[in-house]
Amino acid sequence: MSLSPVSYRPIGIIHSAHQVKEKIPAQPIYAQECLGTAEILPEFLDGLRDIEEFSHIYLVFHLHEAGPPRLIVKPFLQPQDHGIFATRAPSRPNPIGLSIVELVKRVGNILHFRGCDILDGTPLLDIKPYTRRFDHIATQRNGWQDQVDDQTAGQRGLRDYQGSNGGAA
Amino acid sequence: MSLSPVSYRPIGIIHSAHQVKEKIPAQPIYAQECLGTAEILPEFLDGLRDIEEFSHIYLVFHLHEAGPPRLIVKPFLQPQDHGIFATRAPSRPNPIGLSIVELVKRVGNILHFRGCDILDGTPLLDIKPYTRRFDHIATQRNGWQDQVDDQTAGQRGLRDYQGSNGGAA
Repeated sequence: MSLSPVSYRPIGIIHSAHQVKEKIPAQPIYAQECLGTAEILPEFLDGLRDIEEFSHIYLVFHLHEAGPPRLIVKPFLQPQDHGIFATRAPSRPNPIGLSIVELVKRVGNILHFRGCDILDGTPLLDIKPYTRRFDHIATQRNGWQDQVDDQTAGQRGLRDYQGSNGGAA
Repeated sequence: MSLSPVSYRPIGIIHSAHQVKEKIPAQPIYAQECLGTAEILPEFLDGLRDIEEFSHIYLVFHLHEAGPPRLIVKPFLQPQDHGIFATRAPSRPNPIGLSIVELVKRVGNILHFRGCDILDGTPLLDIKPYTRRFDHIATQRNGWQDQVDDQTAGQRGLRDYQGSNGGAA
């Protein structure tokens, strides 16, 4: 196997209100009231052309505070052991984060988005459009997630996030 | 901005029938007859526990033959210029590939999947479950892709792929 390390240089940085990783909602669907911005380095500005025409985008980022990798984890939504690759937990061998966020607007090299489940100061690696044609897939089975009802998932997915209203969420 | 380079070590390698990058379908939906396997390094075997319970997974990989980055590209599906981050084209500043594939089965450290749009020998960086709850998002706008009808997209999405029947596709 040809398995040389690969190296990437961040294209920008995420700004958000999340300063403590333990208090970040687990996924964008539990962070719909959380706004964030992605500041793209000016040298990559041309690469953003037409992105504002998409309602949703993938943000691919480096989970810079993920901590050491663990192969067996209890995910946020269910207190049972699973393999790390069967979860979206951050303590991955390669700590690459992936969030589907709603693109609110672009102002020059700044993307404003809704559904921010990302720590302030996170290095951004890539942006891709999320499209109906490529990404809206009907699943047949959702693994252990099918054992967690939506209400329970919603409660656990908030984690320790207290919301902008001071905790009533 | 804190923008130090990040380094990742592949967790495995993709094996596929695609030997020539110009002849690979553009996305998994145009590669439904293409089977591939992901061989995970034995040291990460525990991380795969329970993944076989998901029908679809994300593969995150290094586009090792992407060539130099270009900020303005003509995507495979439409011969018009767009910013690279508004497309899924491979010539990205950080050549990270993302494919949603159907997981057929797991045999030990080998994942067999359908919808392989990935070059043989590609280094694999991460695997994540694709789930109805997190990833099945109703988009409002799909940018320039909304200008391309499904039939045209299907023809262009095949690119120079001739199919297992010798070209009748």
